[in-house]
Amino acid sequence: MEKRFNQSVFEELKSLLQDRVTSETNIRNEHGVGYSYHACTPPDCVVFPKNTQEIAEIVKICANHKTPIIPFGAGTSVEGHVLALEGGVCVDLSKMNHIIEINTDDMYVTVESGVTRNQIDEALEGSGFFFPIGPGVNATLGGMASTRASGTNAVRYGTMKDNVLTLTAVLPNGDVIHTGSKAKKSSAGYDLTRLLVGAEGTLGIITELTLKLHSYPEAIFAAVCSFPSVELAVNTVIKTIQKGIQMAKIELLDDQMMRAINLYSALNYAEKPTLFLEFGGSKVELEEQIRKVEEIAHEHKVIEFLWEKGEENRKKLWRARTDAAPAAVALREGGKLMSTDVCVPISKLAKCIVDTQVDIAETNILAPILGHVGDGNFHLTIVVDPNDANEIERAKALNERLVKRALDFGGTCTGEHGIGIGKLHFMQPEHGDALNMMRTIKRAIDPDNIMNPGKLLP
Amino acid sequence: MEKRFNQSVFEELKSLLQDRVTSETNIRNEHGVGYSYHACTPPDCVVFPKNTQEIAEIVKICANHKTPIIPFGAGTSVEGHVLALEGGVCVDLSKMNHIIEINTDDMYVTVESGVTRNQIDEALEGSGFFFPIGPGVNATLGGMASTRASGTNAVRYGTMKDNVLTLTAVLPNGDVIHTGSKAKKSSAGYDLTRLLVGAEGTLGIITELTLKLHSYPEAIFAAVCSFPSVELAVNTVIKTIQKGIQMAKIELLDDQMMRAINLYSALNYAEKPTLFLEFGGSKVELEEQIRKVEEIAHEHKVIEFLWEKGEENRKKLWRARTDAAPAAVALREGGKLMSTDVCVPISKLAKCIVDTQVDIAETNILAPILGHVGDGNFHLTIVVDPNDANEIERAKALNERLVKRALDFGGTCTGEHGIGIGKLHFMQPEHGDALNMMRTIKRAIDPDNIMNPGKLLP
Repeated sequence: MEKRFNQSVFEELKSLLQDRVTSETNIRNEHGVGYSYHACTPPDCVVFPKNTQEIAEIVKICANHKTPIIPFGAGTSVEGHVLALEGGVCVDLSKMNHIIEINTDDMYVTVESGVTRNQIDEALEGSGFFFPIGPGVNATLGGMASTRASGTNAVRYGTMKDNVLTLTAVLPNGDVIHTGSKAKKSSAGYDLTRLLVGAEGTLGIITELTLKLHSYPEAIFAAVCSFPSVELAVNTVIKTIQKGIQMAKIELLDDQMMRAINLYSALNYAEKPTLFLEFGGSKVELEEQIRKVEEIAHEHKVIEFLWEKGEENRKKLWRARTDAAPAAVALREGGKLMSTDVCVPISKLAKCIVDTQVDIAETNILAPILGHVGDGNFHLTIVVDPNDANEIERAKALNERLVKRALDFGGTCTGEHGIGIGKLHFMQPEHGDALNMMRTIKRAIDPDNIMNPGKLLP
Repeated sequence: MEKRFNQSVFEELKSLLQDRVTSETNIRNEHGVGYSYHACTPPDCVVFPKNTQEIAEIVKICANHKTPIIPFGAGTSVEGHVLALEGGVCVDLSKMNHIIEINTDDMYVTVESGVTRNQIDEALEGSGFFFPIGPGVNATLGGMASTRASGTNAVRYGTMKDNVLTLTAVLPNGDVIHTGSKAKKSSAGYDLTRLLVGAEGTLGIITELTLKLHSYPEAIFAAVCSFPSVELAVNTVIKTIQKGIQMAKIELLDDQMMRAINLYSALNYAEKPTLFLEFGGSKVELEEQIRKVEEIAHEHKVIEFLWEKGEENRKKLWRARTDAAPAAVALREGGKLMSTDVCVPISKLAKCIVDTQVDIAETNILAPILGHVGDGNFHLTIVVDPNDANEIERAKALNERLVKRALDFGGTCTGEHGIGIGKLHFMQPEHGDALNMMRTIKRAIDPDNIMNPGKLLP
């Protein structure tokens, strides 16, 4: 790839930011890789702006020199979103970590884009409100918006696309724009908020966000239920959703994944296809929902149905779920995680998972499955020997077949991880001519292709 | 305005569609106006395509001649969306009225864009599922998507932006694209679905949609409660939402509007600021919610709290609500409706409404208020004498002040009606530099400005 960075970019940034720009190798290397198997590709320098205005100045400098800009939150993305493929300037948002306003009357919180999930949780502690979207790691809100993240609560509360009210962003020409309004809805013009959410930093840098808050339920119960087959587990979920029962979380773990978490978290669950469920609401509502879901589960031959009504057991359960990825990796000494996800219409989910399990067995790859099954979304936590090139190739081929299967079922190549560089080649098969429209938009807004080049659009 | 239509466009359309193209004056005039005070501006001809492929051919013919194209659903928009400002070809979608698939496992329905709200209701009758979004009229789904419509259920189920899974659209160059997937979520690329929803036909013509279905609640109760003041009514709503009580509908009618519906629907409600509420869920849930909401309402000095548990009374109540606009018009013989809406953060709603009531009184205009108050969205149903130019000017000035007030409160110039031509001049004050980004997108996708020119973007 052609490099588009030069000494005068560095000098101009230096005079703007003084010691908040660096080209130290260690720091560059830390910023050239996410939580993924993609090889580190460092930027030429890293800047640490403190506010939107500074970012606008940085972007103007880079735009003048056609220098690539790569936004960097917590570096937790899994598809290579932060790799500096053409070099350039990494904009580290860690100093943009202020919570600007918590408004409980209008139920929103406004944050700088470097604020993390855990920071929001801490700030809202005791307020009676919470922000529901959370990937399994302590990502930044800017990064979560940019990859259209979701996680375990999405089945009830939606994804980032549903929970961002307004954005402030710096466009490739240095313009600062404010999208949306703090009103709950609007029919005034193009939905730029939803265009920037999921754009992976290719149209601009998100610098502030206003996010919807939700009221904390009066009571929360969780349950663990194991089934004789994936089909029976998934059909339990379909029936439950059809009945209008609003679960907060519906997670599926396959037998392999149950083995992994039993070992890792010293648990003793049946190593069968298992649902982890969570319900939130008033006590009266929950008692009724429990009764209904148990009934549906028994219709689907549930083996065991364990309610976790106490807070401690519930937290233990979800900690085990959160630790699923490290648990999978721990199954194999020296193993490295290669995480992938797809999403299909829920009626196709059981078949998609079962076909994938057969494929995993035939390929002889370690790949426990877990999924946000209420959304039809599931993950393969592939664990490979990083020194075995042949195995890595087989794992990649497994991923290819997984995505092809999901697309054949009318699904998408990624439910929540994003495209980055890892899924670029699936954009054409998934979107067909709609991809041309995406390219037209990208070219119009970023004609010199300086915003996170090489990502999202093949 | 320059006309961009000529005889050869007509001939080419004729050879494609035979008798499904017309330039008859009556038909052109019927297609040159919506449900609004904007004067009829007819197209040069009207075409009646039967499928997406025909629309693509029509668009290619028009693109060749740079002829404007105006999509036309049921003609129920209120801000002049269907006026043929520069002449051209009106694409009437009434023959695109087929329901393609109802899928209850995956809870979606796929329709052609000329299918109406009532058609969907009829098709789903008895299925246990429903589609929640409904403006007060029998609009088409294509039109509703294009104006990002919502209505009384939006407080619980969201707006069109939240309920469209996939779209098929014909772009200005004649390309047919399919956006989104039938999976419930995706992180694969730019969200073209949300870009086309609310674009008012300025980026392309929506020809098919897949819409989310929701399960019909086990039980539905409604209530009518009158309050001494708008503030107390709104604060009841804020508190209820904060408590996480999920109401299906929360409508506010001011004293004037109550007078109108009492007269029109032969009812006998108190002519005070009033909430119409609807709850859906299981019987157990509803009994609990009733208790909580009554408690909150009494804390806010509710005058009367009438529960309507029976289906007949409930239907009567919502019919009265649906008839609010004609009821307002009926207050004045020969009066004509000039409908407008704004949306503000809910904490600002009471003040915004009260200030507006003062303004209405001072302006001496008949303008009952009703609103989807759970969303902070309200309507002025202004009723003017169409022959009194001075009064129309005063009404327009009232609308200007209303919008300015909403923007000052951090709101939007329209919550659900759209921009059309009626609210064009508010786009700059509302969006600032973000408007440039909208223009960049429009120019890139429709460089010859053939798609519904003159709408949405000033």
